[in-house]
Amino acid sequence: MADPALPVPRRRRRGRPSGGATDARERILDAAVAEFEAHGYDAATIRSIAARADVDPALVHHYFGSKADLFTAVIDAPMQPARFLPEILDGDLDGAGERLVRFLLDLWEQPDFRRRGIAVMRAMMGSKRTANILVGFVSREILRRITTRLGGGDDARRRAGLVASQIVGLIVTRYVIELPPIAEATPDEVVAAVGPTLQRYLTGDLEG
Amino acid sequence: MADPALPVPRRRRRGRPSGGATDARERILDAAVAEFEAHGYDAATIRSIAARADVDPALVHHYFGSKADLFTAVIDAPMQPARFLPEILDGDLDGAGERLVRFLLDLWEQPDFRRRGIAVMRAMMGSKRTANILVGFVSREILRRITTRLGGGDDARRRAGLVASQIVGLIVTRYVIELPPIAEATPDEVVAAVGPTLQRYLTGDLEG
Repeated sequence: MADPALPVPRRRRRGRPSGGATDARERILDAAVAEFEAHGYDAATIRSIAARADVDPALVHHYFGSKADLFTAVIDAPMQPARFLPEILDGDLDGAGERLVRFLLDLWEQPDFRRRGIAVMRAMMGSKRTANILVGFVSREILRRITTRLGGGDDARRRAGLVASQIVGLIVTRYVIELPPIAEATPDEVVAAVGPTLQRYLTGDLEG
Repeated sequence: MADPALPVPRRRRRGRPSGGATDARERILDAAVAEFEAHGYDAATIRSIAARADVDPALVHHYFGSKADLFTAVIDAPMQPARFLPEILDGDLDGAGERLVRFLLDLWEQPDFRRRGIAVMRAMMGSKRTANILVGFVSREILRRITTRLGGGDDARRRAGLVASQIVGLIVTRYVIELPPIAEATPDEVVAAVGPTLQRYLTGDLEG
């Protein structure tokens, strides 16, 4: 399921209580989300995140590296592009638009994912620095995969960007600001309405 | 040009130097944008905004009312729905999707609009309170107009929401986070790609 090209964090280590490392990692991620939410990216520190997670700051560095790396891990958690994109893109490209929006809704309807995802969207908008980290992540992990699947080149790159534009707008209006007609629609209604948009961006005529 | 249903602030008053009131209003709006950007909505105060604009706090209250009203005025400035939506919607509905995206790009390509617009998008994402003010504004001033033009009812309301989802996503990816393939596209390319999406949301088949 995981992409072998990405570093996969070790979930357990021998000689430690089963699940202990996983717990600490998850606690650190939760603490990072809370600190980024409460104080913004620039004011949050590895030290304050470690204190909130009740671990040594060295452990945060050990698992995640720098603050920017930790922020990237926080982004990765709700989006999980290495997990879902290959599945969605490897099948028949004709159904990929619908599969993509359905997968995203399945993920974001889960309260834990949504909480982290909203924190990421807020941080992304909060400052140029977090926006740049997110743009780097989205470009590398999401747009590159879509672009490659579409055969590469400028046209494929633009198609991937258009897909991102509708996905970002859907997530912001449905989950972050909760604009009533979008927030109240059923997942099936959203898939029926937005799936064809993503499909056209992936494979349709874009010249008008 | 202005919607008679909306309160139109007086631009000038007799007995004051010509343009003086306009200047003060604009200075207050600029100061509000800067304060909301620098400290967030919750921490900004009428007093701090007045100090930045070099006016008496009573003048801020006089022109704009409460802090929430002032925030609404800041939202209105870059979006100006009362000005552009009737023009766009009153014509042939078949071309409205393209007209809408072209108008938005014309507006947002102007640096002054963009600066304020980005501040609004940031504030919107920053807290539940500003999100609610923005959702109220967008529902009242934008979605209601589109819904009415489409004949009213739940289907029309959902169509208006879908239009908003793509517009928000386009603005966030092109202007706020500057996702390269969307930020680098020419306005004509964006219109050709996104216009048909808005058109389908307005008048097309949404049942798949």
